[in-house]
Formats: sequence, C-alpha cells, structure tokens
Amino acid sequence: MNIEEFFELNNGKWFAHRTSNDLTSKKSVEAKSEIVIEKLAATRPEVVQLCEQHQIEPSSNFVASLINWNDTTELNKKNIGSTVLVLVPDSDNSNEGKLLSQVSKAGKSTLGRYKLGSDETLSLIVESDGISSEERIWFASPNLRMRVNVVKQANGFSTTSFITEIRMGVPPVKADATANSASS
Amino acid sequence: MNIEEFFELNNGKWFAHRTSNDLTSKKSVEAKSEIVIEKLAATRPEVVQLCEQHQIEPSSNFVASLINWNDTTELNKKNIGSTVLVLVPDSDNSNEGKLLSQVSKAGKSTLGRYKLGSDETLSLIVESDGISSEERIWFASPNLRMRVNVVKQANGFSTTSFITEIRMGVPPVKADATANSASS
Repeated sequence: MNIEEFFELNNGKWFAHRTSNDLTSKKSVEAKSEIVIEKLAATRPEVVQLCEQHQIEPSSNFVASLINWNDTTELNKKNIGSTVLVLVPDSDNSNEGKLLSQVSKAGKSTLGRYKLGSDETLSLIVESDGISSEERIWFASPNLRMRVNVVKQANGFSTTSFITEIRMGVPPVKADATANSASS
Repeated sequence: MNIEEFFELNNGKWFAHRTSNDLTSKKSVEAKSEIVIEKLAATRPEVVQLCEQHQIEPSSNFVASLINWNDTTELNKKNIGSTVLVLVPDSDNSNEGKLLSQVSKAGKSTLGRYKLGSDETLSLIVESDGISSEERIWFASPNLRMRVNVVKQANGFSTTSFITEIRMGVPPVKADATANSASS
C-alpha cells in the first residue's frame, strides 16, 4: 500500500470512539464523534493557501484531505471542527515527506513530517511551541481504522489517546474504478 | 533497534492502564494493573517445555520473557497471572520469526508470528480456534510503552484494547553494561 492508496482508504464517514489518558493524574476521558474524511484536489483554495503559508509551490502529486468532526458525546456537543492535511512527498520517496496541517479556518497552521512504514502504519509528527505530537494510524481491516497519539507538553505533562474508528456505510467509489467502468 | 534491544527495553516494572472497546456494543471497560517483565534464558524449564510442545529445539539466540501481571482495579483483584513468550527468529532475519506463548501454567500454548517493523513497532500475530489476535507494541519513550490489540472472534465480534504503560522505578541494568564495567 502506498500513501495514495492509504489515503483512499481513509475517505468516508467514520464512527470514532476516543479514550484519552492523562499520564500524570492517571485519569481517562472518553468521547464519541462522527468523522467525515474527503479527498481534496491540490488546486483547492484551502490547499493552495496552506502551501503558500509555508512557501511551498502546490503540485498535483500532493495528497490532501479535509477532515470534519462532530463530537456526539452528550457533554461536548459544541465540539465541531475541521482539519486540512496536505502531504508533500519527498522527491525520492513518496511514502515520506512534509506534513502541513491547519485546524479549522482561524487555527494556526503547523509543519511536520509524515512517514508510511513497511507495516502500513502512517506516522504524523509535529513539533510546535514546545509541544510534540505523534500520531500513528493504521487499518485493522478496511472498515476498522485505529489511531494512537501521544502529546508531550513543554512542562512535561503527557497525554495519550486511542481512537477506534468504524466505517459507517459503504466505502466511497475509487476515482480510477469509475474511470475503468466508464471506458469498458 | 533490533529485537534483542527491543526486549531489553521491555524488562522492568510497569503501571498499565488499559481501555477495551467492544465494537458491537460500542461500550468500553477500563482496568489498571502492575506488570513485571523479566528476561528468561533459553535454558530455563518454562522455555524448554514450550519449545518441546511445538517440536522446536531450544537455541541460545531465542528471545524469551516472563510477564507477570496483577490487576489492581478494585473489581478485578483476583485477575493475576503470567505469560511466557518465546521468539524463535527466522534464520535469515532475526527481526521476524515464530512466536510461542503460554498464559499461566495450565493455559494452552499458542503458535504465531512476530515482526519488528522499520518504525520499531513489534507486531505479535496469533490465530487459534478461529480467534485472530494482533498486538502492536512500541515505545513512545524508554519509560512509556504503548500497546494496541485487536481480537476478532469467529462469530464476528471484535474487541480493541489500548494499553498505556509507564515504567515504575529505574530501568534494569543491561547484562553487557555490567560485563563492561567489570572488565574496565
């Protein structure tokens, strides 16, 4: 699986169940949400703008996604938002490269690294303002996505989160599958 | 990091915080426990016996561990036990091979596969009696171990678990560090 195929599998609507552990207090918090992930073309304004902020010329080989989430936990119903992710592949290996991200429109954008490992786990690494964050994402099956992230604050406090995501409904039709059926 | 170095890091006493999600009911259960992991020599009776059950000749290049756990969650205090793990490296690559395991003395032993990936994540895969289990283990730092496992039952029910483990006390002194200091 290459990075394009990995992101193709991400697309769709997911039910997400998150558990976050505070490593200092040893307490955990649960949340449930709906997440919709869609592919963005490299020509979309959100992608172009994010590239410009980091002085990067947009290119058609970038992989970009829009992630919308909607927290359905009774106490967190106002927690809705979106993230734009842009992956800028290294010239010699498209499974590694720069990671640009922006949380909602007003949020600050960050620059990090991505790497798709030989075990088909995607690592997203961002260090910003003394906070380091590493997220690992993999598929236990095409309809079961797993994510674990570790956030280390500058003051030493750390949080780990585990998100189990189950696909809701059928996976989206692949762009090239449509092209094939149209030409046959 | 090779497989011997990975297991050296495992050794010691850990505080474990586990969250298990039932994917059908979408409910989760928490548990806390103490886990002690120690290296076992390939000549130890537990290792020899487990190898014999699977018709494998014990060898000094096997990596073996004894894992003792003690559930400290108020409702689960009787849940104590141990697991013996033996890794039998492939002849051409010691980072992959057979995985032998036995839960407590009376438990059934299982045969599976292990693989240490390029991103330093160890995968342990076992299929037995129609139940498939995959565990991924990695270190967010030398004192913070992360584990995620997915268990799929033959009837289609699946459970995912996330375990955050914090090292209690100092890491054990490495065997070869002791040898070096004795000779200097």
